[in-house]
Amino acid sequence: MNIALVSIGEELLKGQIVNTNVAFLGKKLSQAGYTVSLQMTLSDARESLKQGLQAALSSSDLVIATGGLGPTLDDVTRSVAAEIFHCGFREDARVKADLIRRYPENIHFAVQDQAIVPEKATALLNPVGSAPGLIFSENGKCLILLPGVPQEMESLFKEEVFPFVQKQWQKEAKHSISLHFCLIYESLLDPYLRELSLCYPDVDVGIYPDYGTVTVSLSSRNKLSLLAFEKDLTDRFSIYRYESKTGSLSEALLTACVSKNKKLAFAESCTGGSLASAITLEANASAYFLGSMVVYSNAYKETFLGVSSQTLTTKGAVSKETVLEMLDGVFRTTNADIAVAVSGVAGPGGGTKETPLGTIFAAIGERGKVPDLSQLHFSGDRKKIITSSTLVLLGVLWRKIEKGIPAFPLYPQIN
Amino acid sequence: MNIALVSIGEELLKGQIVNTNVAFLGKKLSQAGYTVSLQMTLSDARESLKQGLQAALSSSDLVIATGGLGPTLDDVTRSVAAEIFHCGFREDARVKADLIRRYPENIHFAVQDQAIVPEKATALLNPVGSAPGLIFSENGKCLILLPGVPQEMESLFKEEVFPFVQKQWQKEAKHSISLHFCLIYESLLDPYLRELSLCYPDVDVGIYPDYGTVTVSLSSRNKLSLLAFEKDLTDRFSIYRYESKTGSLSEALLTACVSKNKKLAFAESCTGGSLASAITLEANASAYFLGSMVVYSNAYKETFLGVSSQTLTTKGAVSKETVLEMLDGVFRTTNADIAVAVSGVAGPGGGTKETPLGTIFAAIGERGKVPDLSQLHFSGDRKKIITSSTLVLLGVLWRKIEKGIPAFPLYPQIN
Repeated sequence: MNIALVSIGEELLKGQIVNTNVAFLGKKLSQAGYTVSLQMTLSDARESLKQGLQAALSSSDLVIATGGLGPTLDDVTRSVAAEIFHCGFREDARVKADLIRRYPENIHFAVQDQAIVPEKATALLNPVGSAPGLIFSENGKCLILLPGVPQEMESLFKEEVFPFVQKQWQKEAKHSISLHFCLIYESLLDPYLRELSLCYPDVDVGIYPDYGTVTVSLSSRNKLSLLAFEKDLTDRFSIYRYESKTGSLSEALLTACVSKNKKLAFAESCTGGSLASAITLEANASAYFLGSMVVYSNAYKETFLGVSSQTLTTKGAVSKETVLEMLDGVFRTTNADIAVAVSGVAGPGGGTKETPLGTIFAAIGERGKVPDLSQLHFSGDRKKIITSSTLVLLGVLWRKIEKGIPAFPLYPQIN
Repeated sequence: MNIALVSIGEELLKGQIVNTNVAFLGKKLSQAGYTVSLQMTLSDARESLKQGLQAALSSSDLVIATGGLGPTLDDVTRSVAAEIFHCGFREDARVKADLIRRYPENIHFAVQDQAIVPEKATALLNPVGSAPGLIFSENGKCLILLPGVPQEMESLFKEEVFPFVQKQWQKEAKHSISLHFCLIYESLLDPYLRELSLCYPDVDVGIYPDYGTVTVSLSSRNKLSLLAFEKDLTDRFSIYRYESKTGSLSEALLTACVSKNKKLAFAESCTGGSLASAITLEANASAYFLGSMVVYSNAYKETFLGVSSQTLTTKGAVSKETVLEMLDGVFRTTNADIAVAVSGVAGPGGGTKETPLGTIFAAIGERGKVPDLSQLHFSGDRKKIITSSTLVLLGVLWRKIEKGIPAFPLYPQIN
């Protein structure tokens, strides 16, 4: 079964937004064992959209198109699809009732219009926005239309489209599992993944590196092979593997705090609130996360954490002495069990010979114990340095709490 | 002149990486007035790659393809292109000399191989990696091949390809400009943009909403029309338009702080460090941003900002009284000129009848003056509530500092 992904919208061709929908859909589908063989982005000009969708349908069994489903003038996907499938329009009672329920004060023309769907399409209720998803199925070809807004597309895909695809193309479906690793390079996992692939040739392997984390996705028709592959990989890299439903490291960290009953606090200079921001995106962060002092200025470091002005003057804000005093300050003023203090040079300016761009000092400590302290180095631009250091610190913090492994060195010997 | 962008690689179809090359190229080309009318992603299987490239060449005058130029087995773009243009290969002396100069100790077969280029192609020296760019030009059709690694692609594009395109298609180039707006809905801008489009029919308009901001992109061959359109739009929506090279609201906010010499501090509860994180992603944030107290727990609110336990008990952490005491705390303990305090219910739990999910209290004040205070409401999931409230607060803060407009109401009457 061949799948084509079609993205619709001038804004994608003009580069006004990065197309994340393709990566989302490509990942979900290939992790489940399906093959995406083509992707295209089309403008919302009627004629080229029609030709493009027809070309995709002729080379593929399933076409998933995103975008152009709204009620405004330039949203023509609905009517172009009706033209391709030679049908008129009908009002969908289920969609209309759902829209009235969700937009009680705002059921003007534009919203009502969303209940008008092509006669041959099955409508899928959009739990987030107003445009329903649409499924056309005829002569062995299937076209699924989804809204382009990622949040709406993702929830419609997970709740409606994916179960539909799995049911429709059952034989193609595979068992699949995603394993998440942190504090490890793709290049360290890769040779062992190749070895395991020889042992378990019926398991397909995908490797998805991100800043600071790597996701390995396994799929197979043979569940036993899949589980054996997972076990071998986990045994080898157990100190790097974290469990998370969403793949987020903060989720794993928060789960570890809950299970070990540890209250957490941060003192951030160069990460500028990124650590706090990452953990507070998780629901229920407030149960174990107390807060973060984003002590960007030296005055803040002194006022709120009691870092001595002498240390700041003689050792500098980016030094092991400063992060140790920041950590002390957190323990002195709060009832945190575990804390992180970080200060560094994220750039573009501010680098010196002693502390060049990308230098980060971090102290991670448990109340009453000697803290783990390290000087780290990250490359790249400002955003990359902040993102990478945030993820590394979340990783070592998770591992320290969950597995009792000292935060530094980052990469202890593996078995 | 029609341009097609082709991205080559299994990893894109499998969603292993997000395709940022398309957004980069689409933006550079459309800002210069060129039209990208199609984009596709192809796997590196020879036959489908050949067919896809031929289809792109038949519908477009210029095809820019990225990826698959390396020396490994699965990199077949070079030889597929040679097949399409019916030619053999030659060793390019200039590329070889450049590779020997840049890889003196490492000029093994794989690197040498990169100097072997199709006979009909002009090679472009890659300043970052080893694979040269290639330009094929025949019968009014042009195919440009670039490496897929963003850093290599971007520098080859800027230094070699873009000047080539501008020279080759001189008459097609347009003037263009992007205007950024905050605190305004697309639907409020849209009717006036339609009016202006009737007055200036030679200006092309694109409108690109994002969470909390809207970018309007204008392009035209007639520079006077473009400037007149810009002036009319700006006059009408001046209190919403911010200036930013990258489109980022934090950049505009920081620029306003610099020009008005205002030092900034935050006290964040529900935004959890997002405000601080947004502003510290900008270079030189430290010049005007002092820090943020991420007072997630009540204990933090009391300890660091002196919020009274009575207020927290009787009025609650999500109340106007609490954010006012948080703001007072910031002014009392720091030398900030302007501060923001925010507390709310980001969910999924924690909503009550009085303060339902999505309720945010915010106080924005200037030292010694009566603060602006408001209760706001945001819809969506946790991430959306945090993102939207962060952008709204950055927006009103920018407008207060830059234009002296009170932060609330969010949408004052426009002229």
